Amino acid sequence: MKFFNVKTVEETFSLIDEKISKINGTETCPLKEALHRVLAEDITAKENVPAFDRSTVDGYAVFARDTYGSSESMPGFLTAAGEVEMGEEAVFPLSRGNAIYVPTGGMLPPNSDSVLMIEHCEDIGGLLNTYRQVAPGENVIRAGEDIKAGETILKAGTKLRPQEIGALASLGVREVPVYRKITAAYLSTGDEIVPYETESLETGQVRDINFLTVAGLADEWGIDVIYGGITADEYGEFSERARELYERADCLILSGGSSVGAKDYTTEVIQSLGEPGVFVHGISIKPGKPTILAVADGKPVIGLPGHPASAMIIFRLFGERILKRLKGEDTGSRPERIYARITKNIASSPGRSDYIRVRLTETEGEWWAEPIIGKSGLITTLVKSDGIVEINSAKEGISQGDYVPVILST
Amino acid sequence: MKFFNVKTVEETFSLIDEKISKINGTETCPLKEALHRVLAEDITAKENVPAFDRSTVDGYAVFARDTYGSSESMPGFLTAAGEVEMGEEAVFPLSRGNAIYVPTGGMLPPNSDSVLMIEHCEDIGGLLNTYRQVAPGENVIRAGEDIKAGETILKAGTKLRPQEIGALASLGVREVPVYRKITAAYLSTGDEIVPYETESLETGQVRDINFLTVAGLADEWGIDVIYGGITADEYGEFSERARELYERADCLILSGGSSVGAKDYTTEVIQSLGEPGVFVHGISIKPGKPTILAVADGKPVIGLPGHPASAMIIFRLFGERILKRLKGEDTGSRPERIYARITKNIASSPGRSDYIRVRLTETEGEWWAEPIIGKSGLITTLVKSDGIVEINSAKEGISQGDYVPVILST
Repeated sequence: MKFFNVKTVEETFSLIDEKISKINGTETCPLKEALHRVLAEDITAKENVPAFDRSTVDGYAVFARDTYGSSESMPGFLTAAGEVEMGEEAVFPLSRGNAIYVPTGGMLPPNSDSVLMIEHCEDIGGLLNTYRQVAPGENVIRAGEDIKAGETILKAGTKLRPQEIGALASLGVREVPVYRKITAAYLSTGDEIVPYETESLETGQVRDINFLTVAGLADEWGIDVIYGGITADEYGEFSERARELYERADCLILSGGSSVGAKDYTTEVIQSLGEPGVFVHGISIKPGKPTILAVADGKPVIGLPGHPASAMIIFRLFGERILKRLKGEDTGSRPERIYARITKNIASSPGRSDYIRVRLTETEGEWWAEPIIGKSGLITTLVKSDGIVEINSAKEGISQGDYVPVILST
Repeated sequence: MKFFNVKTVEETFSLIDEKISKINGTETCPLKEALHRVLAEDITAKENVPAFDRSTVDGYAVFARDTYGSSESMPGFLTAAGEVEMGEEAVFPLSRGNAIYVPTGGMLPPNSDSVLMIEHCEDIGGLLNTYRQVAPGENVIRAGEDIKAGETILKAGTKLRPQEIGALASLGVREVPVYRKITAAYLSTGDEIVPYETESLETGQVRDINFLTVAGLADEWGIDVIYGGITADEYGEFSERARELYERADCLILSGGSSVGAKDYTTEVIQSLGEPGVFVHGISIKPGKPTILAVADGKPVIGLPGHPASAMIIFRLFGERILKRLKGEDTGSRPERIYARITKNIASSPGRSDYIRVRLTETEGEWWAEPIIGKSGLITTLVKSDGIVEINSAKEGISQGDYVPVILST
């Protein structure tokens, strides 16, 4: 058996990025079911959006220079020479000295280069009085101004938010190549753990609540979790159940094993699943030190601490990164944390990252983070919290009023 | 027909809070399916969590005063008097001068008041050498310290996040009273609009992309949207389709109608659905001015502008508030925006709220918001954005380096 050193949070993230690769397996998904799926290929536009020059206002398509000098006090005059119908092709080109009515979103007549808003002119029996001048391109969206044919509009690894779905729809894309959905499996260990549905507890028993918090977070990341039940602290049973679940899923999550027996078994069981095995065994973090991370033949295995609050924080920090990498998602730059000012001094040991649950309040354009009192094992501290403040391992603590990063809870 | 004044953003939010009430209708939902549902009743704890005094570490349950004065250089001595098994009741009380081994999560023996970590003592043939002193309560979670029997732990209106589900599971709650799910219905209007699946467009036509962006956002708020198709700019058909969809759903969303005909009809159609009708007709906002908000016999009706980007921003701002109020959710204090520093000066008209799409980048512990260049009608401006900066109506603009609120996109 290998020996492991406790890793810092920063080392743990680097190791995750190094060890966890995306799954194989892509599929084609109808666009209307593709929300929050991850693109498996770059998407190139096959046409321009918009497909034609459009007006962004109700008004008159003109030659901009025909309006130069027009003002309220010195109107110009043009000939109102017809109208473009909504949804119809504008076939008749505009001639100098003329103006053609175009509704918002309507097509610009050939030759016209701008639109004078209806509020800035007046059609008096076919003579259009113009009270303002416009510049070329004003109130117009050019063909291809939103998306140009041939342009790569979305890259592989992009999670499809509503706006990406909209952009794809504007191109007439009906189905998209995405990574297949992934499934995780969850197993609780511990002689004291009973199903959460247990109506009345015997003394010494505790309900298994980590499954629901883990499955809830995974659901928010678009991942289903198979419930594998609770195994007793007995190597044979634990190992067999873990193996069976590992085979059925893309990722195995083990919770608990807070008793000494289970602690011993967990590493051994994980090492037996496949190579290269455990790469993080203990993280210099509070709460959540006894975390185990592994890869067994390409499938990640996450050993969570048993305390519900610790398990949730660890899963939020490292489980999310692991599962998003596994599902092919680019975990790049979108902000998942904000900055707030801490309301109290908090001490921390250098070399260890601390995660402090906080309630956020907004005061005069700033967020203030108020630490939640209570031992780290308490699930209610998370219920009361809006997020967690990170004190990274380089710091010896933070002082009242300091700006601190807050990882928001959902 | 009534006349309407354009409302400010602040007035619009106040009117929404005044006019939109939560739906009638609650149901009982199994806890494991209750993620993101909204509680319809306060939840009171029926038991203590934990149910018994637990150790938070592997160690020895002791009388704290028996350890006073112990240190590495001057160890104390206690008698190692047995062990508590995980998940078992600790029946034998602790006597003075003794220590009983308890695993993490195990039950404390009667009389003991604290736990000395295993790292801080050594069992030498039944004689426990203690190298540190502990304080009463150290390394112990008391019965009821997380949740006290009789305590209201969650209030009606709470959206159930993973941690709330966990807290309920810890109490053995198997089902919860929630508001029923709500459904919205969506109808596009406009002669130029064709289904988004349309493979090739005729000149002048535009694909209907607002349905997918609206349904995508609603999905993130836990709401299904029925697609009602596209209606031509013809009062009879528009009115009939709107009425039919209004009857089938809890909220009606109308998109587009950017042509003059549709603009006229939309208000009339909405007013015909029920009392009191339209309460916002035009908002002093950019983009999204031609927004219509109404209540018809208790059901909200949202008239979105036709431009895809405007429609999405309006729906994110006002649609979310309307739908969350409708589904009974407390829209209280959880942060949905962050503060960032703007990278450029941006002018704005006083009296109008501007929403600027931005990309966020993190530099030395601060978020910087970089405005996205491009006309407001372009859907790709939202694809490139991480959020939208609000310049409220009291301001004449913002200057480079100013802290500004950013509403994050998902």
